[in-house]
Amino acid sequence: MTPIINAKRLLNHLDLLAQIGKRSDGGVCRLAFSDEDLEGRNYVASELTKLGLAVYVDRVGNLFGVLPGKTHEAAVMIGSHTDTVATGGRFDGALGVLAALECVTLLVEKGEEPERTVVVASFVNEEGVRFMPDMMGSLYHSGKLDLDSVYSSTDSQGITIGDEIQRLGYASNAVSTAHPAPAAANVDHKLEELGAILAEVRYFLELHIEQGPELESEKLQIGVVRGVQGLSWFEVTVVGQANHAGTTPMHLRADAGVVASQLMAKLHELPGALPGLRLTIGSATFEPNLINVIPQNVRFTIDVRHPKNSDLSKAEAMVKSLLNAPSACDIHVRSLARVEPCQFAESVVSRVEAAASELGYSFKHMISGAGHDAQILSSKYQSGMIFIPSKGGVSHNPTEYSSPEEVIAGANVLYAAVLKLVNQVS
Amino acid sequence: MTPIINAKRLLNHLDLLAQIGKRSDGGVCRLAFSDEDLEGRNYVASELTKLGLAVYVDRVGNLFGVLPGKTHEAAVMIGSHTDTVATGGRFDGALGVLAALECVTLLVEKGEEPERTVVVASFVNEEGVRFMPDMMGSLYHSGKLDLDSVYSSTDSQGITIGDEIQRLGYASNAVSTAHPAPAAANVDHKLEELGAILAEVRYFLELHIEQGPELESEKLQIGVVRGVQGLSWFEVTVVGQANHAGTTPMHLRADAGVVASQLMAKLHELPGALPGLRLTIGSATFEPNLINVIPQNVRFTIDVRHPKNSDLSKAEAMVKSLLNAPSACDIHVRSLARVEPCQFAESVVSRVEAAASELGYSFKHMISGAGHDAQILSSKYQSGMIFIPSKGGVSHNPTEYSSPEEVIAGANVLYAAVLKLVNQVS
Repeated sequence: MTPIINAKRLLNHLDLLAQIGKRSDGGVCRLAFSDEDLEGRNYVASELTKLGLAVYVDRVGNLFGVLPGKTHEAAVMIGSHTDTVATGGRFDGALGVLAALECVTLLVEKGEEPERTVVVASFVNEEGVRFMPDMMGSLYHSGKLDLDSVYSSTDSQGITIGDEIQRLGYASNAVSTAHPAPAAANVDHKLEELGAILAEVRYFLELHIEQGPELESEKLQIGVVRGVQGLSWFEVTVVGQANHAGTTPMHLRADAGVVASQLMAKLHELPGALPGLRLTIGSATFEPNLINVIPQNVRFTIDVRHPKNSDLSKAEAMVKSLLNAPSACDIHVRSLARVEPCQFAESVVSRVEAAASELGYSFKHMISGAGHDAQILSSKYQSGMIFIPSKGGVSHNPTEYSSPEEVIAGANVLYAAVLKLVNQVS
Repeated sequence: MTPIINAKRLLNHLDLLAQIGKRSDGGVCRLAFSDEDLEGRNYVASELTKLGLAVYVDRVGNLFGVLPGKTHEAAVMIGSHTDTVATGGRFDGALGVLAALECVTLLVEKGEEPERTVVVASFVNEEGVRFMPDMMGSLYHSGKLDLDSVYSSTDSQGITIGDEIQRLGYASNAVSTAHPAPAAANVDHKLEELGAILAEVRYFLELHIEQGPELESEKLQIGVVRGVQGLSWFEVTVVGQANHAGTTPMHLRADAGVVASQLMAKLHELPGALPGLRLTIGSATFEPNLINVIPQNVRFTIDVRHPKNSDLSKAEAMVKSLLNAPSACDIHVRSLARVEPCQFAESVVSRVEAAASELGYSFKHMISGAGHDAQILSSKYQSGMIFIPSKGGVSHNPTEYSSPEEVIAGANVLYAAVLKLVNQVS
């Protein structure tokens, strides 16, 4: 097999989608539930419709284009998201959706029904910038977030997603953003139709930029993603006693800065003791933060990540043990978030690897450092991901970049893996 | 000798001055060159005038009341300041001026000319809150700051001290705030008269609250201050590389937070290696300060203090050596300020000690941690200070407190020491 995607067509789609919400610095801003976000999704819906696919939008804005196969059974879903952060680039999310569009375009061009149904999916609000939580669309889709929670999610201005869905015309038009609003009964009917197809989906595969430096630094073309590391976030508050820096003898101090810096230095040693652990203290705030006053409080965060749940738990225990040691200050620890690591399905990972290998691309198995829709969907579908290199490991930034060759390699692997999933004997 | 001040009178003055600029929380706000500051100084000027003393105000607002002795030679100056920080207390500065007022009141009550002239001084803008630098009045008085620098000092609203002196009526009235403006020729004449007296001053003695916890924690009544520690301030900027906390492997990071926390932890060990060193990292700022982004920059300050200049230099060298060590990040160091330690004059210190001892007070020799007018004036006059305990070491706060007994003890020692200086054989 030599599945080669239409490079020019895919790159053109990437260019056109990047015009929607284009920033003056070359970046892209399509915050979820903004006008630009709707326009971006309408672009995808319109392209899917042109291909003759049935297009559905669920009650929260997740977009699905269905290419029916000989059977819906063990259907294959591919896609990602098209929303961005405020200072986003043109690849994060968009690549996965447009490469999926390219895959179904190729299948349609073949002129014959695929063995199995293929669903292109674009999940809403993956970034979670204006409305929390992130990966909202896939959380709703996989039943981990209910409709009320989505609709009542509120931005810093007090506007809810419910308000925005109303404003954007979703409330009575939850089925297609690209067509006139159907009657309510028709909405229910189409959602039922969508539900019946989705019930048959078995696989989910997402192409995405790595958003890290590993592939680039190892000069590899493809990342065969085996899973997503788990995450645990803490907030630590060290409470000391503010006092005059000049008049307070060292032995009479309770300096929150001393305790906090010692803790931070020790915490930073933990990755050396536990292979695979990533630990970051990204935020620290001193109070009152004056040059000649002993710090009263220092509040800092700890971001702990590990691909293995047992090791993530071990890391959490090591962190807590350091924080619970006797100290000259009071130390308060609060857990802010915990996401378990996810392991992708061997059925999908093996086909991604086979596709990359057969196409002659250099690749390695790897673990995603960032969260993705595929991670959320892995509880519902047999899931997997394909990574391509990110220049300098940069994402969420206008300078986010993957070369045309890298984009094409990723889409080729996606298409080849989709063919394997579509054509497999179940 | 049993010199006992009039406790009721002194405490009453403290109460009345604390009414001027009184805050609703019980604190005091008399920022230098405010209406309240002028009112506070006019209170003192008026009391000095009632005693029959000649009152002078120099071109920057320093206030002097002169009680002529048998000779001006080797005259004795006593006093402090009456301006406060925005959230000030009733003792910092005010005590030293009002205790000096009490001393000259007692001398006047004696009904005989003292052996030497005694000058009560209240220096302007010791706190340096709205207009920099602090200790402005004593800096001007000792020739370390010229008139133009004072007049052009500008607050955050763009208002200069020159503007405020004009508004408050000092420009053509640099001699007395308590009386109608004299003609310009008269101003010059009075300033000449003042200059002639000041030229004869040999000693300066200041009573002040400790602003630290030492006397209270050691249950002592009096601090015989031998000097003021020197100070050196640094700003350190650690420059790393911001990156995604999840996707960036530990070995590919340049984490400014890691380097900064290690440096801070090591810097905090220096006082253990150099006796007498006080080191404070009061301020630290992380950028971009996000939980899941590796810190790009960390900027922090170092406040280093030591009573001995050679050891202060040693501490500075130790700090720089730590900051210059090889690092994964760029480290930029900037000196923000340096004030040399000052040693008070044995002629004054010995008389303070003798006074405390003869009056039966418990005392110890100590070094001031904070800066004071006496420190600045020590280059011009043989100087010294007397400390009384500060409850909890707190100052610059409405809860600043010294008990009536502590205030009276301090004023008794001041008066007894002044008598020794006035009556000594030169």
